[in-house]
Amino acid sequence: MILTLAHIGPRYPAGDDYEKLTQVYLRRMTAFARCETVAFKAEEALFESLERQPGRTDAQLILLDSSGRQMTSEAFAAWLGTRRDQGVQRLVFAIGPANGWSAGAPQHAQLLLSLGTFTQAHALARLVLAEQLYRASTILAGHPYHTGH
Amino acid sequence: MILTLAHIGPRYPAGDDYEKLTQVYLRRMTAFARCETVAFKAEEALFESLERQPGRTDAQLILLDSSGRQMTSEAFAAWLGTRRDQGVQRLVFAIGPANGWSAGAPQHAQLLLSLGTFTQAHALARLVLAEQLYRASTILAGHPYHTGH
Repeated sequence: MILTLAHIGPRYPAGDDYEKLTQVYLRRMTAFARCETVAFKAEEALFESLERQPGRTDAQLILLDSSGRQMTSEAFAAWLGTRRDQGVQRLVFAIGPANGWSAGAPQHAQLLLSLGTFTQAHALARLVLAEQLYRASTILAGHPYHTGH
Repeated sequence: MILTLAHIGPRYPAGDDYEKLTQVYLRRMTAFARCETVAFKAEEALFESLERQPGRTDAQLILLDSSGRQMTSEAFAAWLGTRRDQGVQRLVFAIGPANGWSAGAPQHAQLLLSLGTFTQAHALARLVLAEQLYRASTILAGHPYHTGH
């Protein structure tokens, strides 16, 4: 399974402090899943990238949205494990543009996922998501990271 | 008003990447409130520090707890502004020990505040809280940080 961390907006420079911390979690996850990051200029480019790739028809899109579904870390890990076991080849987790997703965006997504009701800085939401993906992967792998916290 | 960011556990070293990002938000907040950080070895030390200081009887304790109350950033800013306007001298926001607060801890607190249902790394929850305090202060000050995101 490939996990894609997508966002709408400029690419984060490698030296950015948030980017560095985010990449630490993604690197640690490589034992569990292939990880990649990608930036899109606008949400349309994200939706088109998923629809135009015939080999990725089993990709599922998860939009981060504060009004979406909240889960515990354990439930999120179970959700991720179910998709892995179903043979889903790619999960694309996408953080929206500064002004939020358009009204039509949810129709492209399998899930709206909420990190909580607080509004967060874009780079911080991305870091929170990366840590949560890593945490979920350690829960699925029986690694002590989650229980150690 | 003094805002204290307290946690149970070892002090974060100055060179720690999370600590650096956290301090950036706390520094930016000095126009709004005095900020300080403090680490306690155990929750008892936190509770005693609040009860033993006669000049701080109007301090209010807020425990971070995933089962606590969730607010939007706007509601959190309003909550903070109300306490400021009531003349509360100190708000202590405390992040618990690795194994969570004890069953009796909530009785010491004015509020249990939730950052969301996900479990987060200790240093990350602290950064999320610092950003949220900064965001609240900009909302109260009419600074464009919040609307710019």
